[in-house]
This record gives sequence, C-alpha cells and structure tokens, in this order.
Amino acid sequence: MACSASAPSSAPTAAALVLLVLASFVCSCRSAPPDALVFKGQFLSLGVLNLMFFSYTSSYRSMLRHFTSLVSGPFNFESGGSAGSLPKLHLNPYSWSKVSSVIYLDSPVGVGLSYAKDKSKAYTTGDLQTAKDSHTFLLEWFQLYPEFQTNPFYIAGESYAGIYIPTLSHEVVRGINEEVKPTINFKVVKGFSYIAACGYMVGNSICDTVFDGNALVPFPHGMGLISDDMYKETSTACHRNYWNDSSDECRTALLNVDTVIAGLNIYDILEPCYHSKNTKKNDEVATAWLNNDSVRSAIHAEPASSIGPWVLCTNALLNFDHDAGSMVIYHKNLTSQGYRALNYSGDHDMCVPYTGTEAWTASLGYGIIDSWRPWIADEEVSGYTQVYENGLTFATIKGAGHTVPEYKPQEAFAFYSRWLTGSKL
Amino acid sequence: MACSASAPSSAPTAAALVLLVLASFVCSCRSAPPDALVFKGQFLSLGVLNLMFFSYTSSYRSMLRHFTSLVSGPFNFESGGSAGSLPKLHLNPYSWSKVSSVIYLDSPVGVGLSYAKDKSKAYTTGDLQTAKDSHTFLLEWFQLYPEFQTNPFYIAGESYAGIYIPTLSHEVVRGINEEVKPTINFKVVKGFSYIAACGYMVGNSICDTVFDGNALVPFPHGMGLISDDMYKETSTACHRNYWNDSSDECRTALLNVDTVIAGLNIYDILEPCYHSKNTKKNDEVATAWLNNDSVRSAIHAEPASSIGPWVLCTNALLNFDHDAGSMVIYHKNLTSQGYRALNYSGDHDMCVPYTGTEAWTASLGYGIIDSWRPWIADEEVSGYTQVYENGLTFATIKGAGHTVPEYKPQEAFAFYSRWLTGSKL
Repeated sequence: MACSASAPSSAPTAAALVLLVLASFVCSCRSAPPDALVFKGQFLSLGVLNLMFFSYTSSYRSMLRHFTSLVSGPFNFESGGSAGSLPKLHLNPYSWSKVSSVIYLDSPVGVGLSYAKDKSKAYTTGDLQTAKDSHTFLLEWFQLYPEFQTNPFYIAGESYAGIYIPTLSHEVVRGINEEVKPTINFKVVKGFSYIAACGYMVGNSICDTVFDGNALVPFPHGMGLISDDMYKETSTACHRNYWNDSSDECRTALLNVDTVIAGLNIYDILEPCYHSKNTKKNDEVATAWLNNDSVRSAIHAEPASSIGPWVLCTNALLNFDHDAGSMVIYHKNLTSQGYRALNYSGDHDMCVPYTGTEAWTASLGYGIIDSWRPWIADEEVSGYTQVYENGLTFATIKGAGHTVPEYKPQEAFAFYSRWLTGSKL
Repeated sequence: MACSASAPSSAPTAAALVLLVLASFVCSCRSAPPDALVFKGQFLSLGVLNLMFFSYTSSYRSMLRHFTSLVSGPFNFESGGSAGSLPKLHLNPYSWSKVSSVIYLDSPVGVGLSYAKDKSKAYTTGDLQTAKDSHTFLLEWFQLYPEFQTNPFYIAGESYAGIYIPTLSHEVVRGINEEVKPTINFKVVKGFSYIAACGYMVGNSICDTVFDGNALVPFPHGMGLISDDMYKETSTACHRNYWNDSSDECRTALLNVDTVIAGLNIYDILEPCYHSKNTKKNDEVATAWLNNDSVRSAIHAEPASSIGPWVLCTNALLNFDHDAGSMVIYHKNLTSQGYRALNYSGDHDMCVPYTGTEAWTASLGYGIIDSWRPWIADEEVSGYTQVYENGLTFATIKGAGHTVPEYKPQEAFAFYSRWLTGSKL
C-alpha cells in the first residue's frame, strides 16, 4: 500500500507501520522467530522498554508503567498483589496499535532482553552504530515479513530516542537513495501536499546540547520553581548561556538553581519524587514478569539461564559514545527533503523541557503555516501546537511529564492518530 | 490567652482564632444566635462561601467543593446520588479547625445566606464599607462570646478577600489603637521576635491593578500556554505593561494572548474547563443542601420563604464599589507595624497568578531573611517559600489552583499549621 493521506483503519490490519525505537536492540540482528507475536496483521514485538538507561538520575519512578504504557503499548499492567507475583495484563484502550502496526525495538544492543554473543565488541557502540544496527534490523525484519513492506512507515520515540530517531531516519533515507533492498516505505510522494509524506516523531527528545541545556533555567523559572530574582541573577551571571558554566559567578548561580530544584521529580515536576522506599516496589513487578520463564518463552526471549536476568538499569553499555552531535542538522535535512516531523513535549517535564524543543524547532527557520493555538481532545485544551513549512509540527501536551503516552494516554492517542493521517492536531 | 509562639493544641479548644473572610456578611450585624454551633470551644459558623461572586468568569467549576473544602472547613461533601438529594457530610481530615477555632463569615452583605432588611441602602457598598461592617460584626461577636477574646486572632482569606483582609486588618488595628471595646487580640508583642505577632494570610489574592495585571502575560508564557514568540511580541508591543492597553499594537497582541488561552480553566490551568453541560451538576447539590429547610434551621439561617433561596452567584451587589485602591500600602503599613503576613499562591492559578503576588511582595522592599527554598510536606517538595523581614512570608503551593486548600488540602493544612505557630514552612 502506498504512503497515502487516507486514515489508517482502526482494525488490526492497520495501514501505517510505526517503529518506536526506545530501548534495546536484539543483537546481531537475530531475526524475529517465525512464530513471533503476529496477530491478524499486527506484529507485537514486546521488546523491553529500558528508556531509563540513558536518563541522568537514579529516579526509577514507575518503571512498571514505563514498561507498558510508556509508548502506548497494547497492554497495561495491574499488579499481581503480592511481592514477586506476576502482574495481570489488560488491553490498553489508548494503544497506538489500534491505528497502526507497531514494532517496539530494544535498542541499542545490550539493554532490555537483547544480548550479543561477542559482548566485548558489540557493547562498545554509540549513536551512529546504533542507527546502522537498527537499519540492518529493519531490512531483515521486512525481508522476514514482506506483507508489511508496502505499508507507509513512520519512526517514533522519546527522550534519548531523540538521537535514535533522526539518525535512524537518516540511515533509512540513505538506504532508499542507494536502492538497498527491501525498500522501506519511508518516503515522500513528490507533488503531493506534506500529508502524503511519511516521517518521524520525537517526544521530549534530546536534540542539541545548547538548546536543551539553555532550557534548564527558563523552564523552572516559568514554572515557579526558582524565584524571579534567582532567574535574573542567573541570567546575568551566565549571560543566558546555561549549558556551559563559563565563569565562577555562573557556576555559583547554577549551583543555587540546582540546589533549589534538587528534590523534584524531574520527569514531572508535579509528581511525587519516588524515594528509595518506593523504588523497589515499582521495579519488583516488571522484574518478576520479565524474568518469568513462561513469559520469556512466550515473547521469544532467551531464558535468564542463558543470557542473564532482566534488570531495571543495565550497565552493559558503559562504552556507549554519544558521537552523533547535534540533531538540528538531521532535522533540517530530513524535513527539507519532505519528511514530516512532529516534535511533541509533555510541558511539565524538566528532563528535556518543552522550552528547548520549542526553541530548536523554531531555529530551523521555516515559515509558520498554522500559528500557535490550542489543540483539543475530548472538548478540552490538551496543549498547544504550531505548524511550520515542510510538514514540521511542534506540539505541547498540557500537564504531561517526560513520557507523554504514560501521563496522558487519551491525549497522546488523539494527537498520534491525527498526525499519522495528516489531519490537523 | 496571650498571642504566643506556642503551638496551638490540636484539641478542639484550639488557642488561635482565625477569621476567614470569604463571602457574605450577615447584614446589620445580627448577632450569632445563642445556640450557634459552638462545640467545646470551637465556633463553627457555617456561613455560605460564595467566593465566586467576585470572580471574573462564568466558570462555576466545582462550587460544591468550594463550599466545603475551599477554606479547609470541617466537612467534605459526598454527593447524595440522585439530582436534588442532600449530600452526605464527612469530617475533613485536613480541616483548619483542627488547629484553630475558625469563623467563616459571609461578606459583604447580600451574598450567601446573608441579607439586609433595607436592601437599597445596605447593598450599595464597597471595599471600605465592607471592612467597617466586618469590624462591627467582629466586635459584636466577641462581645457575645467573651471566652474567645483572649485567643490570639488571625485574619485570612483568598481571591477577592485579598482586598477584604488588609482593609479589615487596618480597621481592627485602628480599633485597637483607639481602644474600642472589646479589644480584639490582633496584636504585636513588642520586643519579641516576629513569631509572637498575630497577623493575616492572603491566598491567590487580588492586590494591585498593576502587579496583578502585569502578571497575566508572563504567567501563561512560563507555563507554556503562549509561545515564546508571542510573549516577545507582546512584551515589545506593550512595553511590558499589560494592565492598560496603551496602543493598538498592544491591544492586538493582548487579544491574541486572550484568544489562545480562552479555552482554559483559569482557576487551574491543568484542570478541565467545566462546560455548560457540567455546571448544573456542580451547582445542584450545594443548592439542594442550602435550600433545605432543616439545614437552614440547623445553621440558623433564615428560611428561604423569608429571605429567598440560596443561589450560586447573586447579583444583589451590582452596586459594589472597589474603592480601596491598591493593597500594597496596606500590606506595607501592617507588616511594618509588626503584623505577620503570609502571601501564598497556588502556582497553577491563572486568575491571580503567583507571579504578581511574588512581585508585589518583593516590592515592599524588605530584606530577605530566609532565601527562596522548597518547603516540604509528607517528604515531598510542596512549593517554594521566601521569608522577608517584618514577618512577611511568600509561599507557593506546587500544582495548586486558585483555592489552595481545595486543591491541596494536606499541604494547605501543613503550611497553615506551621505559619500559625511561627514555625518555618
């Protein structure tokens, strides 16, 4: 099926195929087993989401929820009750799989339930190698499941996947241009409006040291977490450059800011900060589930006896190199070629604040074709959006934290469905 | 009992007496009936809270909750189920009456269940007359209940009570200085630290046209409701003066801002905006309760047959004149005389944003004696606070809307209890 503007069916034979790169990549491009979870046209690779691997704090809040609803996956967990018991699975009414077939990919290699036989080599990796690995995986996957090849193909992810998505998109485009087979249907339909183009989505995504770093003082100021005086002092001391502490005055001012915001949950400033007393609880159910022999067998993961247990935060990738640099140039290249992009932000996230994403999106220099306005879901203002030339959309989700589909599943489903079909948010 | 720094008992014989002026005033200073709700030293005057009278929109969201928990009153409502049925009352675990005796006063005359025999005269009133009326009420009340006269006395309120509180405080101080009897124990203990002083609290309170008006653009900008570009354009067009639209450019820019934020719930930008479909529901239970003959008899209100039914928003006071001007000078006078003040703000309120309160508090020009820092309740950052000389405290409540005890009852109880005893927030 060609990449078209028609609404994908909500039936399981959804037209769009979306790849959400969020965590670990099954190493050496092992193909999915022939009896993988393919239900009536839907491929559900229950890859382990290990988003926290790239996070900068030790706050493990609600990883259980991350595991399931983080990317609006098909299931929600209900705790099994007692410690170590298996959780019950419920269908997620706002699963993105209702309007698209979704691959959840463990990436880079070494996280989640992925592994490599030659760890010493495979686990020394970085942004660019991860993009190449993911591209290789995709090519093999489409070879294995040719019935999906003609579906329009999108790429999406959150947080550090802000690096994975543009770099993988770049690899996919390069592959298409070099006529690598099978051809991935990540394409621009020339002569059509932008809604005919496939593309990518990044949510609360890391992009650029300067833009993201400079957002970290205006954001807490705007949210009332630092005082107006503290903001002015810090601005003056740092000359509005907060990402590199260039002077003693600036360092001192930034230290004051850090001290004042230290007790907050950076993934949602309004949520409680889960202290050590709660960490275990959130970790426990996911750990029990993913280390259960029957579960691992059902999702075609190797048994714990073979590759070791699933752990919340792996340190397998201590040699991961952030070698791709700023994503701004990737975004510019992709959007100027006609690939649609949606940069969305939960506006209460302090890990990758919307202020930085808003700034770097505007920095691409495109004209505005749909000015800043509220977007509505269920009759309520659910956030704000602005659409630029070249199919570039910025959107906030009001009241959402770092992982939007986790905090606002209904709203996330709404903007996802609309964007996928080329409708206005 | 003298106004002291000792913690008030949590027993019903609480030491502190707090007057919350929030709505309507029983006219002509009718004394409370001899069998008013006085329980073991607690006087619970269940005056009707009609805070919305002075609000600027027609959004009546959850007036039922306003009615009970708005000022951390002793009861919470549970809907009775069917339309028009009486709600069930539950004890509010975070009622401020647990650490203080509280008078809830319907003010000004004409709102709530209050009334005047000579409406034409009494209902033409304003800020200054309301303060005098409330003072008269207080003097008569203390005469009627002399056992409360020696309790340290505080005054508190929210929203438009930001006018009532300083003006009434001014009247009370004037009365004390003129040796009006009975003497209200709203006093400064000379030679002691500020914690020995009585004082007043205002929450998300109106204060000053310029400060409050100028907060209305930076606030939505900081909260991600208007874009960075829109903020810069408006700042430039209005020269950072948003309270009086001095030029066509400024008016246009402000109109754009208004359009963009129009669909929001101004009392809590993260809450749904209750549309007409829901208004009736929230109104219904309070209306049923307050127009029930037995309820009115129990709280010593005149029957509906005599003074008419209770209505959500009265238009009895169309001749109310905001004649007190800016409250900044009142705050300066009171605090410089040694009366303690707590200016607190739910930081997600867009009706009277914290940004304005933060600014006018700082404008009093006092030195900082406890710098901006988080304050903690139940092991979590519950907001931020900064303490100035002369017993002046500014505090935010993180994630709270316009009526803090309604949105964050536990946190409100914590800061209230602490402030009352002179403890650090």
